[in-house]
Amino acid sequence: MTLKIALAQVNLIVGDIKANSLKIVQTALHARDQLAADLVVFPELTVTGYPPEDLLLRPDFIAQAAQAVTDIARQVAGIDVVLGFPGNYQGRLFNTAAVLRDGAILARYQKNALPNYGVFDEKRYFTADNQSCLFTLKDTKIAITICEDVWQAGILANNKQAGAEIVLTLNASPFHAGKIHQRESVVVDQARALELPLVYVNLVGGQDELIFDGASFVVNHYGDIVFRAEEFKEQISVVEFEKSASSNQSMPLSNTCAPLYNEVSSDYQALALGIKDYVSKNGFQGAILGLSGGIDSALVLALAVDALGHDKVEAVLMPSRYTQDMSIEDAKLEAEALGVRYHVIPIEPAVTAFTGMLAEVFAGTAKDTTEENIQARCRGVILMAMSNKQGRLLLTTGNKSEMSVGYATLYGDMAGGFAPIKDVPKLLVYQLAHYRNSLSAVIPERVITRPPSAELAPDQIDEDSLPPYDILDPILERYVELDQSADEIIAAGFKREDVTRAISLVDRNEYKRRQSPPCIRITPRAFGRDRRYPITSGYRGI
Amino acid sequence: MTLKIALAQVNLIVGDIKANSLKIVQTALHARDQLAADLVVFPELTVTGYPPEDLLLRPDFIAQAAQAVTDIARQVAGIDVVLGFPGNYQGRLFNTAAVLRDGAILARYQKNALPNYGVFDEKRYFTADNQSCLFTLKDTKIAITICEDVWQAGILANNKQAGAEIVLTLNASPFHAGKIHQRESVVVDQARALELPLVYVNLVGGQDELIFDGASFVVNHYGDIVFRAEEFKEQISVVEFEKSASSNQSMPLSNTCAPLYNEVSSDYQALALGIKDYVSKNGFQGAILGLSGGIDSALVLALAVDALGHDKVEAVLMPSRYTQDMSIEDAKLEAEALGVRYHVIPIEPAVTAFTGMLAEVFAGTAKDTTEENIQARCRGVILMAMSNKQGRLLLTTGNKSEMSVGYATLYGDMAGGFAPIKDVPKLLVYQLAHYRNSLSAVIPERVITRPPSAELAPDQIDEDSLPPYDILDPILERYVELDQSADEIIAAGFKREDVTRAISLVDRNEYKRRQSPPCIRITPRAFGRDRRYPITSGYRGI
Repeated sequence: MTLKIALAQVNLIVGDIKANSLKIVQTALHARDQLAADLVVFPELTVTGYPPEDLLLRPDFIAQAAQAVTDIARQVAGIDVVLGFPGNYQGRLFNTAAVLRDGAILARYQKNALPNYGVFDEKRYFTADNQSCLFTLKDTKIAITICEDVWQAGILANNKQAGAEIVLTLNASPFHAGKIHQRESVVVDQARALELPLVYVNLVGGQDELIFDGASFVVNHYGDIVFRAEEFKEQISVVEFEKSASSNQSMPLSNTCAPLYNEVSSDYQALALGIKDYVSKNGFQGAILGLSGGIDSALVLALAVDALGHDKVEAVLMPSRYTQDMSIEDAKLEAEALGVRYHVIPIEPAVTAFTGMLAEVFAGTAKDTTEENIQARCRGVILMAMSNKQGRLLLTTGNKSEMSVGYATLYGDMAGGFAPIKDVPKLLVYQLAHYRNSLSAVIPERVITRPPSAELAPDQIDEDSLPPYDILDPILERYVELDQSADEIIAAGFKREDVTRAISLVDRNEYKRRQSPPCIRITPRAFGRDRRYPITSGYRGI
Repeated sequence: MTLKIALAQVNLIVGDIKANSLKIVQTALHARDQLAADLVVFPELTVTGYPPEDLLLRPDFIAQAAQAVTDIARQVAGIDVVLGFPGNYQGRLFNTAAVLRDGAILARYQKNALPNYGVFDEKRYFTADNQSCLFTLKDTKIAITICEDVWQAGILANNKQAGAEIVLTLNASPFHAGKIHQRESVVVDQARALELPLVYVNLVGGQDELIFDGASFVVNHYGDIVFRAEEFKEQISVVEFEKSASSNQSMPLSNTCAPLYNEVSSDYQALALGIKDYVSKNGFQGAILGLSGGIDSALVLALAVDALGHDKVEAVLMPSRYTQDMSIEDAKLEAEALGVRYHVIPIEPAVTAFTGMLAEVFAGTAKDTTEENIQARCRGVILMAMSNKQGRLLLTTGNKSEMSVGYATLYGDMAGGFAPIKDVPKLLVYQLAHYRNSLSAVIPERVITRPPSAELAPDQIDEDSLPPYDILDPILERYVELDQSADEIIAAGFKREDVTRAISLVDRNEYKRRQSPPCIRITPRAFGRDRRYPITSGYRGI
């Protein structure tokens, strides 16, 4: 006897219970009718999308989700549906999965292991349960788990002991570079150790700063991955299980694994998906950005075009007296190479106006970063005006290295609704530019090779103020992502003066990051919900 | 035999272990030498300040805190010190309190009840313990608890059963209007029910959006509050306990309770303290703000002057063609009444410059909010330039009603480092203005009585776009703070069209709030760490 399990790797909209319900029903009917599946498995918290955050505190929202599950059950017959929702049970809220069969809820599982670290806040909302849940389909005992559960050895072992022959796991496992290997190896190790096949269904899509990368997979009881869905795309697939008469062991028959992107190209895909979903799910007409002739804006332009199409993206060149001719030339080349409409709006009239307006109050003071910030803020006003008028999302183009050390102007180049590369360190910006050019040449070589500059003062280059990026980036990774102390970083071979400079800038610039737009998280620790530092803080890493 | 317990209601700096340690040592020596105390009790997480947020994930920070406790123990003899710190124990982190005696740690208590709701994320960092901790001083058995512990009945009962005669509780209990009554009644009820006296020591001071209001107190075993420290101020006090020979019951002998502020005046004190601490703890030279002639900026100006002194505050008047003469007149009167230096910088030159620069790209389009936003953003550029040049903190002046419905310009009037009244609904703005004028007349009566206007278009008033505030504010409170559904709000007597308008604006403006500066929390749910909504969200409250 064979059992066909469909993996529904879908892209949902947080909070849009109606749209998600429709997608669930359509997908289930497709799995039943087109794929002849006996069972379809959806990602974690399917009905609400993940993470719904404080919507989970609204009684009306929880009631709507419960109603949706009832409605879905009524609309789908002839296939078992396993989906997730926030479920009230005896006055407490659980991260719940339900098996729907014949118009009703056949079984409920409530997540045992609640993550409450990094980007996760599940203990803010949910109670942890400690019960397993098994149901039988076509003579096969199937267990249900949810995401974090499979990262803890005991829970799968309990299922095995209870007689599970196949374990389903519903996930909303967020992407960062290399995460997929970590995820697959954890599951593979457990499948092998327990001799238990697993069906791992992951969410796909962008949700504010999180990317869910899909790559759902099936592992057999030897620990072989025998099926893998594509990364970063919706995909509904079916995997057939056959039960051996002799061993009573359920075996997945598939042997179709989508290849994996390498690290740089997966980052690129993640960033493009993040832009696409932020724009579409928030109802923008497209995107605009300021194009400086530097590498950061060149990369964001390419990402935006790859995500949205060239006709949905508009670029604005805003030269000042400090802008070199080659910056303008290169920016134009970038826009032209990608077929993007661009405008040239010199900022001099506004800068002159502000300088005049402030002449009296600034009389007798020396020039400092104030004057640089005014230029950046004039650009911010222009871009926001165009964004407001056209309903296009303004993308900011700052990278993680800059955001770490505060090398950016609040309300200036930081102005915008979404910051696609805020979690991309500068060295990775270069790698991503090379990768994109390897597909088709869209970023002029000179943009990649010339020394980075903010062009806010005469002959300014980044290295005047900051250590070179090949020194700075590893220091930042150790300090920000790995929580290393200055002494540890110095012991690892970095110069004390570079470490001191970098760390003191990170410490002092929390206030800027707090007001920056959300990014797309591609590292194990992004600025945002992942790293929650006080602004008012006497802590000094150095 | 009597026992003298000092309550150290201190203002600490998050992350500044060195400064906090120094204050702990000085306070303990003062309690020993000036107050003849046997024991001094500090607030929760004394050594690090509260809440240290993700600093708690840094091994170097935890090690520094442990070292600080050892150092403090060595520096203080002749008095028992009870203080809080994040303590590693067998590889796990606990919210710990220690009793220091004779140069060493005599006893450790690890918090049993970890709050992980509202503004609290303690389960992100700490493991919950389930052990009590009693120590003996002068023949009296004393138990230790930390904050949330006393909100749960079982924990105090365990202490009573273990023989506790007095319970100490170390707190970092944040302020919101009315919280003090809630807090005192919880503790009083337990003291009475268990016939157990309690010494409740609270933190005082501002930390980003949180205000800790002090008002430490002592309750006897009848449930009478026999001592209360002042609200919003540092205070080191001693309360003497006498043990009755007959009943063996420890009785506090004090009868000195600081009076409580009423709700509006306590809000005012909280806001002033919030400004004062944000400015001083972050090392600003003072504050500046834009003064429009409206009531919001008038209130913020008064608060800033009361918090910092008139010489530390500067005001900027930035009239446009839509600014009425009376707005300018009133703004000048406000600055003069408070003795604040002010500048008048008309924004017309910058607005004209931007209008010209955008003429070509905006050709053929109709005027909309874009043009209003440009005006607000020109003001933002001026204010930020002055803030940058002078090292003064820019205060934004938007209130909670506006922030709820998005009636504010991102990077315009929302630009600034701190938003003192972002958690103050408009109706409360009026009450606070009246309260401040009752102390001395600083806000012209006309500012309070004229209809509110953003003055960004001809003859504009807020009620053109929004329901009147006496309708809007209660709707917002129900939707934002109480999680009521539209149907519930309508059933409570509000018009459907007003509810629809208000709720849909709240839903659509999450992106703006995400980039707003931190506020001072005075309601049970402020925008910020307290209310965590997705930006990308299909949820519609209506």
